[in-house]
Amino acid sequence: MDPEALPTLFDGLTAFLVPGIDDVARFEDPARGARGRAALVVAPANVEEVRNVVRRCVANGVRLLPQGANTGLVGASVAPPETPTVVLTSERLRSSVAIDVGSSTATVSAGTRLSELNEAAAAYGLQLPVDLGADPAIGGMIATNTGGSRVLRYGPMRRYVLAAEVVAADADTSVFGSLGALRKDSRGLDATQLAVGSGGALGVITGAVVDLVALPHSSATWWLAVDDARRVPELFGVLDRRRPGALTAFELVSRAALERTVIAAGAPPNPFGHEVPNVAVLAEWSFAGNGEGGNGVEDDIAAAFDAGLLADGRLVEPSLAWALRHRVSESLRTLGTVLGHDVSVPRSSLMDLRQRAIDAVAALAPEAVMCDFGHAGDGGLHLNVLFPTDVGPPGDALRAAIRGAIDDLVLAAGGSYSAEHGLGPLNAERWLSTTPLIERRLVTALKDVVDPHRLLGHPAHPYNRL
Amino acid sequence: MDPEALPTLFDGLTAFLVPGIDDVARFEDPARGARGRAALVVAPANVEEVRNVVRRCVANGVRLLPQGANTGLVGASVAPPETPTVVLTSERLRSSVAIDVGSSTATVSAGTRLSELNEAAAAYGLQLPVDLGADPAIGGMIATNTGGSRVLRYGPMRRYVLAAEVVAADADTSVFGSLGALRKDSRGLDATQLAVGSGGALGVITGAVVDLVALPHSSATWWLAVDDARRVPELFGVLDRRRPGALTAFELVSRAALERTVIAAGAPPNPFGHEVPNVAVLAEWSFAGNGEGGNGVEDDIAAAFDAGLLADGRLVEPSLAWALRHRVSESLRTLGTVLGHDVSVPRSSLMDLRQRAIDAVAALAPEAVMCDFGHAGDGGLHLNVLFPTDVGPPGDALRAAIRGAIDDLVLAAGGSYSAEHGLGPLNAERWLSTTPLIERRLVTALKDVVDPHRLLGHPAHPYNRL
Repeated sequence: MDPEALPTLFDGLTAFLVPGIDDVARFEDPARGARGRAALVVAPANVEEVRNVVRRCVANGVRLLPQGANTGLVGASVAPPETPTVVLTSERLRSSVAIDVGSSTATVSAGTRLSELNEAAAAYGLQLPVDLGADPAIGGMIATNTGGSRVLRYGPMRRYVLAAEVVAADADTSVFGSLGALRKDSRGLDATQLAVGSGGALGVITGAVVDLVALPHSSATWWLAVDDARRVPELFGVLDRRRPGALTAFELVSRAALERTVIAAGAPPNPFGHEVPNVAVLAEWSFAGNGEGGNGVEDDIAAAFDAGLLADGRLVEPSLAWALRHRVSESLRTLGTVLGHDVSVPRSSLMDLRQRAIDAVAALAPEAVMCDFGHAGDGGLHLNVLFPTDVGPPGDALRAAIRGAIDDLVLAAGGSYSAEHGLGPLNAERWLSTTPLIERRLVTALKDVVDPHRLLGHPAHPYNRL
Repeated sequence: MDPEALPTLFDGLTAFLVPGIDDVARFEDPARGARGRAALVVAPANVEEVRNVVRRCVANGVRLLPQGANTGLVGASVAPPETPTVVLTSERLRSSVAIDVGSSTATVSAGTRLSELNEAAAAYGLQLPVDLGADPAIGGMIATNTGGSRVLRYGPMRRYVLAAEVVAADADTSVFGSLGALRKDSRGLDATQLAVGSGGALGVITGAVVDLVALPHSSATWWLAVDDARRVPELFGVLDRRRPGALTAFELVSRAALERTVIAAGAPPNPFGHEVPNVAVLAEWSFAGNGEGGNGVEDDIAAAFDAGLLADGRLVEPSLAWALRHRVSESLRTLGTVLGHDVSVPRSSLMDLRQRAIDAVAALAPEAVMCDFGHAGDGGLHLNVLFPTDVGPPGDALRAAIRGAIDDLVLAAGGSYSAEHGLGPLNAERWLSTTPLIERRLVTALKDVVDPHRLLGHPAHPYNRL
């Protein structure tokens, strides 16, 4: 269909924005990566409007890309310039958050932001315990199965999606999943599970019911300094065993990442004064109310000192600690070109993987610096490689070599090359080349049902390249 | 294929049992419901042997029914007498339990019993926190997405399955899923999720990696008496708010169920002495170590008394309390014919549903007694209807009318007619008649990939009737 004629497709149906007439920049400019291009942005406000949009696209063979808050990091949330694409933003899918206090659940539209939901939930002492630097929409969090800093204690987004409602691009624009608020349901295949991690390629997520948990009554946040990175698992073990289940975060920031973060303008102060340890760990313990206190965390720290695991430890103000932690990624990007790698392995083998990755990058690109950081407590790490401005960006061959080397190491360790950012153009090749045939056939079979004309999601999403 | 000739199919391949020659009763006699009939029982000991069995069945068009510990309650675990069926027991899929303490995970073969896993995990202060009256195999727990008494705090089985390995009945006897021990993985569709709730109809589960959590350091177990059933949600609210996240069980036992349980031979004593309250609640709080104590639960109980919510409350010995609770279901079955209903609704509407169900059954069958009990804290209830021995069993029409009435009420309340027992012949009709077309088409698409000849699982499983 002629892109110029696209507005006529939706006339009278729903709100839409036309590039050149309206400002559509925020739907084209992702949090990271190259700018995309929306032929048109449609903003339906309810499920029937979404079905209407999908129906018109299917009838006219127009590509449709669902978009949440456009905070995704794998290139799936913006439309490619080379394919005329309608972007369906969830911005107006935002009816009020309905909290069922008796059931500890919230029913939300897909466009609801994480911060909005948590503000509403906090009034009842509840939270969706997914902690992120960004403020995504709930639909996007489901489509990526996002993780964040508290997976260690609370698990990934999947755990909290009790139900999701999804519009398919089949002949009937069928709706699958539900907005049922059941804590358990054993009726076979859970269609909601198909929405989790679907990346916009298996349907348009319109709403969800999420589980809420109690806000902690108190917490203790420490920055810890470790000289020998190989002993980080041992440190985790000591702290976890002494107070089982109480650690809500165990974040690692390497020396290379921390020293570059604390020098940035406006950064919170270095918690260790003038020193930057080889490895810094942000450890957070959280406690419920009524006597389940955090008394004695300092004894746990002392035990770790006694075991020779710590070089320093500072009880810190939580908001300063988290502000610093959440700045790491973007601070590095101000200093040059960053190749990001979002990986996970079994927690017990994370430090081995880290060392291998450092060695591999040093061999391939001695001019680059591994500035790794991430969620070590759940086996996750962002093995981000910085090419400083004075070195200049790496060429395509070197980028590919580094990514290939790290992904190979990760897969050899039984790990994932997409721990929490989802699937999209950025990791599509790897998915296509390493996913077993039967699993690709399963996705093809699902696509044939929910998107027989292959119109949903980014055309470079791996599900659209099967 | 001639059933007499079946043994020749497996000769030299793997251990098998022939009815009439070997005792196969335990593979034919389910925990509940009618006896089935195995044409042959095969007991492969590893994935390659499983693939060998599946390959022979596919090549010869022989039906294959995967079976765990045969503790299932929906008729899916035994083979139907009318269809010659090979039963694949996981009894020998039982290599040692491998616990990765550093990662808090266990890699287990499908035939591993829950009790075996938990015995091994307890040595490290860890557990798979699924509490059941039965002792199922891990593969069966995954195939039913089982629940149990501690879903309230810990969630259903799905939450604990980090990975599952499954053999498909396609031309290549492909293996999907994995034995990866990742706490988070965002690579799109998680094939492991397809195994959860698959009821033996989407593949043979051969192994899994499960998440383990810390064993509690201490707990407090109370039997509470409630006069007015409608105030049970209020009671839950008071207790939960005073100590958020600490309740690990909140089990309801109705007067009708409790008075019939305590009179059974060998039953633990009535915790309330000579009284049986209108509704009894078994409430359990659990606490982690190092200062996160359970001091003050009695204050919470006192607050509930002050609010007029309790008629009685007794701190009890946990093993006696649970022994009584886990006897309820089978005790009722010694007293007549029980029509079991395994339902869930949003927690906040459970008591409304309960009253409607009691009224509906009273109207349809005044001679019957609703003896309900179950996991009220997670919105689940077993609305079990007893036809006492002196009344005699209900006819088929009445059975169908009662089941229909209860299922209709449950669905109208946004609930599930299979909260924790899975899908099988017993609830197949309801699944087929109420599941949206697109979700049935999604299952058909998956079946076409993993079981194109429709040989896997019970022939009356709904996935085999699409």
